[in-house]
Amino acid sequence: MAAPVPPIDRERSAARIERDIETLAGPEFTVSSEAIRRYAYTPVYRNTLDYFTRALQELGFTVTEDPVGTLIARNRPPGEPVFGVGSHCDSNRNGGRYDGTMGVVTALEVCRLSAEHSLDLPLQLISFLEEEGSGFGQMLLGSRIMLQRVTEQELRESFRAIDDGRSFWEHAEEAGYEPARWQESIHALDDLTGWIEMHIEQARVLQDTGNRIGLVHTIAGYVHADVLVTGRGDHAGATPMDLRLDPTTVLAECVLELERLARATGQGTVGTVGEIEVDPGIINAIAAGVRFSLDIRGPVDDAYRGVADEIAAFAERAAAARGMTAQFRQRQTLPATPLDERIVDALDAAAAATGEPYMRMHSGAAHDTMCVADRVPSAMVFVPCVDGISHHPAEDADSADAALAAEIILGAIAALQG
Amino acid sequence: MAAPVPPIDRERSAARIERDIETLAGPEFTVSSEAIRRYAYTPVYRNTLDYFTRALQELGFTVTEDPVGTLIARNRPPGEPVFGVGSHCDSNRNGGRYDGTMGVVTALEVCRLSAEHSLDLPLQLISFLEEEGSGFGQMLLGSRIMLQRVTEQELRESFRAIDDGRSFWEHAEEAGYEPARWQESIHALDDLTGWIEMHIEQARVLQDTGNRIGLVHTIAGYVHADVLVTGRGDHAGATPMDLRLDPTTVLAECVLELERLARATGQGTVGTVGEIEVDPGIINAIAAGVRFSLDIRGPVDDAYRGVADEIAAFAERAAAARGMTAQFRQRQTLPATPLDERIVDALDAAAAATGEPYMRMHSGAAHDTMCVADRVPSAMVFVPCVDGISHHPAEDADSADAALAAEIILGAIAALQG
Repeated sequence: MAAPVPPIDRERSAARIERDIETLAGPEFTVSSEAIRRYAYTPVYRNTLDYFTRALQELGFTVTEDPVGTLIARNRPPGEPVFGVGSHCDSNRNGGRYDGTMGVVTALEVCRLSAEHSLDLPLQLISFLEEEGSGFGQMLLGSRIMLQRVTEQELRESFRAIDDGRSFWEHAEEAGYEPARWQESIHALDDLTGWIEMHIEQARVLQDTGNRIGLVHTIAGYVHADVLVTGRGDHAGATPMDLRLDPTTVLAECVLELERLARATGQGTVGTVGEIEVDPGIINAIAAGVRFSLDIRGPVDDAYRGVADEIAAFAERAAAARGMTAQFRQRQTLPATPLDERIVDALDAAAAATGEPYMRMHSGAAHDTMCVADRVPSAMVFVPCVDGISHHPAEDADSADAALAAEIILGAIAALQG
Repeated sequence: MAAPVPPIDRERSAARIERDIETLAGPEFTVSSEAIRRYAYTPVYRNTLDYFTRALQELGFTVTEDPVGTLIARNRPPGEPVFGVGSHCDSNRNGGRYDGTMGVVTALEVCRLSAEHSLDLPLQLISFLEEEGSGFGQMLLGSRIMLQRVTEQELRESFRAIDDGRSFWEHAEEAGYEPARWQESIHALDDLTGWIEMHIEQARVLQDTGNRIGLVHTIAGYVHADVLVTGRGDHAGATPMDLRLDPTTVLAECVLELERLARATGQGTVGTVGEIEVDPGIINAIAAGVRFSLDIRGPVDDAYRGVADEIAAFAERAAAARGMTAQFRQRQTLPATPLDERIVDALDAAAAATGEPYMRMHSGAAHDTMCVADRVPSAMVFVPCVDGISHHPAEDADSADAALAAEIILGAIAALQG
């Protein structure tokens, strides 16, 4: 089925997308001059929401924000069915220009194309709050709030700002939101007949296979956890090697065992230690304790969960063998998410109509769509990023690919309306 | 040779030492309520110097501070020979009550005993600035400044506060000192005929051998360095295991290899990774880089320096084997320091006269005496600390042992004057 849309000027779309991306990499939109660093309730994040708000209002959309700050823009009154497009516009702390933001920019381009070609598709754009966890250490926070996958206690107490240790609740109120109404956030999904999120791939499968578009049929699940190793803080010079309880040795064994387990398990399973915190962390003191994070993922639930169980048991054994203790504390977990076949098929037809190379694939990264898909038939569209580099200032992607994605998404939505 | 001193009331000495230690553990003297945390140019450090100043002035000492803040108190005019006693009264960031401070308190008790028994020994007490490096990441800073073992460029530019990144120079000036006159600091040693520093042992040799006193004949040398591993920051979920350049794996291999090398080398060699810094240090990002510190020590220069050379080469090889790079950067090094036989012998005679168990030993920890010994005949006296625990709030030592040390030091100085 060909998408019932007129021919699209891809160069004009690419130029508009490029201009948006370029603008949002400017000093008003990032806390750091060396990376994109943008997270909830900072002035630069506010500027970013304002940028999208102005652009969408020019297209006749009504723009609101939910009780915690997820942006919602629609061109139909409440109660009427709409099709959802969007992503997130926060970044990780040492991030690039494209992760998340290019998805919102491309969703905006879908809205523009619908208007300028007089298709007047019923659309709702969403830009989720805090996908990366840079503000409060909690990934997918906006979409988890929307799907009621948090507790009020977490929002009021447990979730605290990395910068100052104050609660999410306090920060949200200070930014002018009404966190006490957080449960109303879910109504943003009430009228959605479908949802498509565009995102950079964040790996090198598309680049290596020469495809410009990936249609995502499954999103990998994950376990996020911490391991706390308790040793004994001693003097680094005066404590003989045989009398030490040095938790950095347990950390070291766990880093290497996690790598071995992920490789041995295969099936797309990956494992990462991204955070390491040493107490007291001074050159001439043997550490009293070490905390390190675990990020373990894959498209096959049994596989990556098995690795999480095994590394937890290994850490306890490795610590005990050295007279120390290790505690595994899970932060959060989400199962792998199968996406909606009908929407993936519609995207497939629209992609085929463009004549450009594309493929079906799974996503190794987590996305807000994991939450949305719980309620709304959903799919994702990936574009390549150079060498798979992401979450880093060197992140690079091509606006021409994003323009192609906008055309395909527009075509799929038009076809699904038909 | 018995020391020509009258009988000492050890219980009274112990009570005075206990009172000083107890006072200096109070909230006016530490930044943290959970540990002793005291370092240069903080109000709590100022209060500590003021406490010693008042106590020494009561004994008729003239108290001054050198151009950067090392405290110097003497009971003879400049130009007359004096015997030096003292230590440091800063702490590491998660420190206990005894490291350094008990040495200054015991030196103060030596001054008290000399006065109350009308010995009127010619004494100079020194409390060195920043032995632990908690303020500026530089160990033995006050004594290295005194011995001209720093450069003006380091003081003006390179040495920067851990808390705010501003230079040592700026902080010293702000605290009312004259860092531009730092080279005059060495004159504090001009009149010294000898030097004895008392300190807790910071290991468990005295406890395990049932000795109350250790007479130190050698201080271990050390290498302090950093290793910087450069990998590639990538998305933790979307980057397959085979495409990663994850520097935490090189860190892990180096931690375990350092442990193996130190054990294999023996001869008292120890090696510690106390600081680990992950960039960017977020749960869902593979690190772009990792920095970790090395503290490698021992009484045998060839042994510990061999370990430093080997771990530097290992880090480069381990990184290269994974397609990454590692750089070894030495921060500072000091050779092992033999102490003065004549002073150690005088301490030995005074210790024998007490009838209490004591031993000769080497120090695994570095001390300001490493610097002083370059110019002045020097020795050290150790007292046990429980389970060898130091650089930690659980640090514990007995004031009765410190009182015994004061008596022995007093006896040795009196004998050396005779």
